[in-house]
Amino acid sequence: NMAAMSLQLTVVSLFLLGGVLTFPLGQEAEHTSTCGYESCHPTKPDMLNVHLVPHTHDDVGWLKTVDQYFYGDRNDIQHAGVQYILDSVVDQLLKNPDRRFIYVETAFFYRWWRQQSSSMQQTVKQLVNEGRLEFVNGGWCMSDEATTHYSAVIDQMTMGLRFLNETFGPCGRPRVAWHIDPFGHAREHASMFAQMGYDGFFFGRLDYQDRARRMMYREQELLWRASDSLTPPMADLFTGILPNGYNPPEGFCWDQSCDDAPIRDDPDLEDYNVDDVVKRFLAISAVYKTNHIIMTMGSDFQYENANLWYKNLDKLIHYVNAQQANGIKVNVLYSTPSCYLQELHRTNLTWALKNDDFFPYADDAHDFWTGYFTSRPALKRYERISNSNLQMCNQLEVLGGPVSRRGPFGVGDSKTMKEAMAVAQHHDAVSGTEKQHVANDYARRLANGWQHCQVLVSNSLAGLSGSTAERIYCDNLNISVCPLTESSKKFSVNVYNPLARPVTWPVRLPVNGTAYVVSDANGKSVDSQVSFSTREVRRSRGFAVNELVFQVQAPPLGYTTYSVSLLQNGPPPASTQHHTPTAIKNKFLQVTFDPDTGLLSSLSNLETKQTIKLTQNFYWYNASDGNNVESIQPSGAYIFRPNSSTPFVISKTAKTESIQTPAVQEVRQWFSPWVSQVVRLYADSRALELEWTVGPVPIDDDLGKEVITRLDTSIQTAQYFYTDSNGREVLQRKTDFRPTWNLKQSEPIAGNYYPINSRAFIKDDDDQLTVVTDRSQGGGSINNGSLEIMLHRRLLYDDVRGVAEPLNETSGIFPKGLVVRGRLLLSLDRPASAADAHRPLAQEVVLQPLLTFTGGDLHPNTRLEFSGLQAALPPAVHLLTLSQWDKDSVLLRLEHQFQSWESKVNSQPVTVNLQKLFTTLDVLGVSELNLSANQWKDEMKRFTCNSPPTFEDPSTWEVTLRPMEIRTFLLKVGLR
Amino acid sequence: NMAAMSLQLTVVSLFLLGGVLTFPLGQEAEHTSTCGYESCHPTKPDMLNVHLVPHTHDDVGWLKTVDQYFYGDRNDIQHAGVQYILDSVVDQLLKNPDRRFIYVETAFFYRWWRQQSSSMQQTVKQLVNEGRLEFVNGGWCMSDEATTHYSAVIDQMTMGLRFLNETFGPCGRPRVAWHIDPFGHAREHASMFAQMGYDGFFFGRLDYQDRARRMMYREQELLWRASDSLTPPMADLFTGILPNGYNPPEGFCWDQSCDDAPIRDDPDLEDYNVDDVVKRFLAISAVYKTNHIIMTMGSDFQYENANLWYKNLDKLIHYVNAQQANGIKVNVLYSTPSCYLQELHRTNLTWALKNDDFFPYADDAHDFWTGYFTSRPALKRYERISNSNLQMCNQLEVLGGPVSRRGPFGVGDSKTMKEAMAVAQHHDAVSGTEKQHVANDYARRLANGWQHCQVLVSNSLAGLSGSTAERIYCDNLNISVCPLTESSKKFSVNVYNPLARPVTWPVRLPVNGTAYVVSDANGKSVDSQVSFSTREVRRSRGFAVNELVFQVQAPPLGYTTYSVSLLQNGPPPASTQHHTPTAIKNKFLQVTFDPDTGLLSSLSNLETKQTIKLTQNFYWYNASDGNNVESIQPSGAYIFRPNSSTPFVISKTAKTESIQTPAVQEVRQWFSPWVSQVVRLYADSRALELEWTVGPVPIDDDLGKEVITRLDTSIQTAQYFYTDSNGREVLQRKTDFRPTWNLKQSEPIAGNYYPINSRAFIKDDDDQLTVVTDRSQGGGSINNGSLEIMLHRRLLYDDVRGVAEPLNETSGIFPKGLVVRGRLLLSLDRPASAADAHRPLAQEVVLQPLLTFTGGDLHPNTRLEFSGLQAALPPAVHLLTLSQWDKDSVLLRLEHQFQSWESKVNSQPVTVNLQKLFTTLDVLGVSELNLSANQWKDEMKRFTCNSPPTFEDPSTWEVTLRPMEIRTFLLKVGLR
Repeated sequence: NMAAMSLQLTVVSLFLLGGVLTFPLGQEAEHTSTCGYESCHPTKPDMLNVHLVPHTHDDVGWLKTVDQYFYGDRNDIQHAGVQYILDSVVDQLLKNPDRRFIYVETAFFYRWWRQQSSSMQQTVKQLVNEGRLEFVNGGWCMSDEATTHYSAVIDQMTMGLRFLNETFGPCGRPRVAWHIDPFGHAREHASMFAQMGYDGFFFGRLDYQDRARRMMYREQELLWRASDSLTPPMADLFTGILPNGYNPPEGFCWDQSCDDAPIRDDPDLEDYNVDDVVKRFLAISAVYKTNHIIMTMGSDFQYENANLWYKNLDKLIHYVNAQQANGIKVNVLYSTPSCYLQELHRTNLTWALKNDDFFPYADDAHDFWTGYFTSRPALKRYERISNSNLQMCNQLEVLGGPVSRRGPFGVGDSKTMKEAMAVAQHHDAVSGTEKQHVANDYARRLANGWQHCQVLVSNSLAGLSGSTAERIYCDNLNISVCPLTESSKKFSVNVYNPLARPVTWPVRLPVNGTAYVVSDANGKSVDSQVSFSTREVRRSRGFAVNELVFQVQAPPLGYTTYSVSLLQNGPPPASTQHHTPTAIKNKFLQVTFDPDTGLLSSLSNLETKQTIKLTQNFYWYNASDGNNVESIQPSGAYIFRPNSSTPFVISKTAKTESIQTPAVQEVRQWFSPWVSQVVRLYADSRALELEWTVGPVPIDDDLGKEVITRLDTSIQTAQYFYTDSNGREVLQRKTDFRPTWNLKQSEPIAGNYYPINSRAFIKDDDDQLTVVTDRSQGGGSINNGSLEIMLHRRLLYDDVRGVAEPLNETSGIFPKGLVVRGRLLLSLDRPASAADAHRPLAQEVVLQPLLTFTGGDLHPNTRLEFSGLQAALPPAVHLLTLSQWDKDSVLLRLEHQFQSWESKVNSQPVTVNLQKLFTTLDVLGVSELNLSANQWKDEMKRFTCNSPPTFEDPSTWEVTLRPMEIRTFLLKVGLR
Repeated sequence: NMAAMSLQLTVVSLFLLGGVLTFPLGQEAEHTSTCGYESCHPTKPDMLNVHLVPHTHDDVGWLKTVDQYFYGDRNDIQHAGVQYILDSVVDQLLKNPDRRFIYVETAFFYRWWRQQSSSMQQTVKQLVNEGRLEFVNGGWCMSDEATTHYSAVIDQMTMGLRFLNETFGPCGRPRVAWHIDPFGHAREHASMFAQMGYDGFFFGRLDYQDRARRMMYREQELLWRASDSLTPPMADLFTGILPNGYNPPEGFCWDQSCDDAPIRDDPDLEDYNVDDVVKRFLAISAVYKTNHIIMTMGSDFQYENANLWYKNLDKLIHYVNAQQANGIKVNVLYSTPSCYLQELHRTNLTWALKNDDFFPYADDAHDFWTGYFTSRPALKRYERISNSNLQMCNQLEVLGGPVSRRGPFGVGDSKTMKEAMAVAQHHDAVSGTEKQHVANDYARRLANGWQHCQVLVSNSLAGLSGSTAERIYCDNLNISVCPLTESSKKFSVNVYNPLARPVTWPVRLPVNGTAYVVSDANGKSVDSQVSFSTREVRRSRGFAVNELVFQVQAPPLGYTTYSVSLLQNGPPPASTQHHTPTAIKNKFLQVTFDPDTGLLSSLSNLETKQTIKLTQNFYWYNASDGNNVESIQPSGAYIFRPNSSTPFVISKTAKTESIQTPAVQEVRQWFSPWVSQVVRLYADSRALELEWTVGPVPIDDDLGKEVITRLDTSIQTAQYFYTDSNGREVLQRKTDFRPTWNLKQSEPIAGNYYPINSRAFIKDDDDQLTVVTDRSQGGGSINNGSLEIMLHRRLLYDDVRGVAEPLNETSGIFPKGLVVRGRLLLSLDRPASAADAHRPLAQEVVLQPLLTFTGGDLHPNTRLEFSGLQAALPPAVHLLTLSQWDKDSVLLRLEHQFQSWESKVNSQPVTVNLQKLFTTLDVLGVSELNLSANQWKDEMKRFTCNSPPTFEDPSTWEVTLRPMEIRTFLLKVGLR
């Protein structure tokens, strides 16, 4: 009796030094429930068991916005309405207890759930408790794997899984990860999934050559060892490749969107076709190791009218199994991925081991899905900076206490931004493979989320500083726009640092004065420079003629304050020099330029006394328009396919201008009206900054263009180069090579492109040149010593993967085409110690300080400096997450940010004392969770673990992090 | 509690002379049921009440076959699956008791019902009993009105309504007729609907000029007085014209097949649109007389996923009615056509009176739907002959008793043929507006039905005759194929006459002998002639070189038998003469020919001594290809649009040949390789037969052709001519004129075409030339004295009304294009007595004798002659229906076949004694029913009846029929 079903909260007791805690984590299922592996239908050991898995694949935005998909709006673009899918599936599951369904995207499910009556909610809980409705994956979305950063992926998974946990308890916890659609698969995703407690992982897309080999050798099931640093089986994950992408076998699609013949079982009919259907079904051949095969019975936005599917599947099962009486050894059953996985696990077979990843993905010889690594570079950057903003918002919600959410500036929240960021991780969001209006919607959501966070941040900083003066956010500093600094004679700058260690950071502000006095929190004057702002370089949309530059230093997890006052009758701004200097240098680096071309010519690390030849220039590949004898595939949002392997140089020489001040030295380079760059060396920086500006990419010659910058060096790379996986572990890449199969290379450029999420490097025995990026980009090392990164793409044709628009970004403020600006940070080091530089450098780009402004004088009682930490964390430790969980507890993730082989100094275990972490929070208790925070770590038992997981008893407050380890804690806290 | 719901049989007591009978007629509803008018939602008298009517329009075949539609097969052609519609609607009705749905086509519902579990059947009964699911129309299909014969329409309505009655009882009885899609509306249909007890009639299509005028004068509701012979209100029917065809208002279509925006009522949404939807809804204006408007919320094959519709309609009702609190005087409610009708009825308003019909239908100035009157002439003929076969099958099932269904030739049935004929009445079936493969399917069904009937007929005739000798059916006599007669030296011919009066009939058999002896049932020799069969005329597919012709006479509702023996050494066959005779004549008629042209030149009735000039020839209109300045409308399956109003003559002269024998005189005319004709005068016939053969219509000139024959006479027609309505009452037509509005004629030919179902005539004070057709055809009288009939159409373009195929019939046996043969029967009479000739003549064509053959000698005990009637019925009375109803009862329909003004002799009331009707049946009791046999006549109470219906108390066995009256009886019978 459903009405009589009651739900109870689990009370988990934790024994800790700090005392006995009671902690709710999700809800307990009815004790009679038989969800999970127990709810699977029995199979027949002497038969081929065909696991039919009814499912829908609901993109969290693609051709339509996430709202349009939910409601079924704009069906003229694509017929899809998720609200109806869930309505219909629940109805149909109730009609036959044998039926099963899996649901994936919590972004949609959550929204649907909120609109249901409590009796419908009870009904759904019953279905979940009986394993008839099973959640798989269960994150907010099915994230992209090539262009996402692990930080945001962990957040979105946590948010989705938390909802399921709190709503359904253990029966709502997904057992398998399910990335059926992403266009290639990152090793770091597999590692994260393993640490989130998933028993297995299924996906649909891999290189066609890889698929062919695996079919031949029956290696479509494998054990993915997804980390070279974590102790197995921590990052081991059983991985299954689905036989038919995620679609049903040909001829067996019974969705309303399909045209396959239904089963017509009225024997009076002219069109009776049961015998034919059974015969065709039995002819489907399987190339798997076991006597189990999985059939994904569903596809994009299917099951809006689930009756069509289930009615025919019921008949299929009935009529095929009826053939068992005739000796046919086939057993068809409703199943789920976890039920299928359980059967595979029971076979106790050994699976092939996989150590690399599944990039790049090609579905045919000239169809490499490597364009989306760069597609929509502005959106990719906006997503990245939004993550930085969200992390600060989360931190300040914790540090500022309840006043953050409701304070002097009104009601703020981090939830809106969390949801916007979670949605943006979808594999058609940050990937850049959505329609233009959908891309606009993602950006709008992020902007809206940030509005909500700004209120929270203002409240929090008001609480921490004691000042309720209005706080101004200048989100357009990248294009030199900030009305306050442009017009004020006196203002203060609050610099909030989200990292757990102090940072120094150059601040560049648009101003109209020629000289300013800048003082730090102690009232001490700091060096500053005003230089003339070159509009041609900066393409400013503001009114500032000058730029004020000074270096700030901010404490860990805290802020400091600088005051800025116009200096009347000060010196004139630094003027630009119209000849190119042969070199610029600071105390760490020297950069030389070729006086004939204006291009970079060498880079030296003055500390290590190493020098490489380095020239850098900008090029474009002519995007294929599909008019080609080999293939009609054009370049598009997904696909990168240059017409020729030789890119066109934009200009062999650059017009240059330079400006040199004590704070910063810049060489400004112009390559064309649409490509320019500032080569910049700050006084205190170990990295060379290349600030590029590209666009509007001209298309009046009717040629689509894919713009790259290429670094050509004297490093002997021997075909190798290195890219990170989702911002974490680095993988070795080799030109024209794949570690697990004998590659037949058909696209010499596109087939050698890999995703770069945060960094790439080339090295030889002596030198390592690392490039840290400010967003995800595609890149490759085509020639010896060379590293190229694709910056921008403007295309004239759709690439026939569904988006049905050419990637040609023009909009209101960029009617002639999108202009994009970004930064590459170059670091030259000895290979053995390069990570000591690029790990923190990359984190500084990912989590960059937040500048907020206050006009005029601050109240004298204002607290000008604050740190949330009692001390900076050790260099190897990154504070990945600090976020309010509920009223009394916060979620903390600490991360060892070095791989085991990267650094003599930093690749060591490191211990942190959780009780001595914070200045303003009393840590009253701690409990360790799995990575996605939906299971206590000591309860996490995975199929693939042959040995118990190696986690320590948290019997002390000291927790040790090993290389690349992330540990997740729920802290019971009180504000001091 | 549904499970506890029980259903009881109604026992209706009938008091008759014959005694007290108990009779089941349908099932009684639960006494708590509130179906019908009682179940309507209340309305608000001070507001505009908007009746939302959720509905689906399910064509019983069109672009897909009826089976394909039911199962949802071939969704590549059109997405449509009726099984899912009914599944889904029932589910959704259960979710909210306010929701309503109407269902129309019993052909589909019946099939779905059979597949449901008994608990689902109980659930559906509950919905019906509560008025939440209401049947409207309720026939097997929604019949075409332009090309159907009333006999088949009554049958198909009876079959559908009987199923509803027996399944659901009174709550299943439709209250309104619902012809939302047929392409023009016949007066006879309205008359039939009135006599079937419907309270009102709704349709969607009418001439665009008519619509405009009615909107202006608020006459979209009207009282249709649908007979000029029946006493009002017998054939009066309230008729409502739906505001938007049968579609929802623009922007409010929420089916899965539509793209309109759903109601997005989450206020957190960017896309929140409730205010906009409400505003747009309130802007819909109504042009009706009352404060009620109806909105058809549905369309073709909609509600396959009813959740989409209902979820949004629930919201629409909620949000619009919420505006009442703000003073908006609009009240939206779920409703049905009968609930809407009830509200109109309550207003007690007077409606405009209508006496004519709604033909022809034009939806724009050059878009006259008058092509389908003739489209697919072979299918139209096959449907008509199939009706004849079915009536005989029904009759012989009654006359032969139980042995008919299970006898010496196996198991036979009439049900298969009944269903095939019912399906063929659909407005995309006999109309010819379906795709080719669907037309083939209708023909296949009829053929299959006839196979089942043949077994029954053989069993029945075996029982009646006492002979179990094999009985051969020669269905291809029209193309001179009958293997038995072609090869046998001795055989017998059984001639079954389905009419209730004796007939004489010419028999033409393909033979290879040159002379035969033919004897009647008494052994008396009858005249016969063998003539040489002209292949060029007959396009025979058989092997016969000669043709045996003799006249047969068959008793009423019975058979007689002729034996045929080859005469060795007989005379040679009659030879043809290659000169044209100037005249042929028999004792009734004389026909003259123009010796120069070979064409007819005059026709004389020798009895009445009247003569008219009459020339007849064949022409073709060049079908518009849409390439036209006035309109891009081409001719197609629906639309007739000649490129020019002047048709091309096929040949000004005919090559002729004649054959004259005592039995028959023929002039054979050749006009071209693809048009020929036999002008034929039988010795005993009062009608001149024109047997035309047209095809393959040549299209190698890339011109679509619409072939007509035109009769040009000396009759002074003064723009008038006359056509029948569905084979019954005759309506006056006038060129370039409509009785109810001031016509602006834009298509001088197509706009003057009307459907001819069985006859058309032209007349003046002295002469009436009547043409009886053998199938439905289109025709017109463009010029004075002229009558043209379209015979065949072959077109090269689709006419953009959905069928998406040009009407270009080619198939396996006609790879070069369809050849069609047919007959026109001409009768010349004085106007005052013409009906005395054409009424029986037309019935003879509709119900023609069935010839069956037996090889060799018959057993001497064989009963060679039989009549089911004690006496022939009076000339005015037609036996319309004699069909087994259940084990002990038969359905009888007697019809007065003359209009009140037609005949001095026959337009009189006539009385029949039911008990003295049959020879082999004892009539034990009788009860009168409404026309559709789903209600006792004395219980039939209609809205439109201001006076009680004028039916007599059946207190005697004598029943009187007034002109054009059809009376329907259920007879309790026993076999004698």
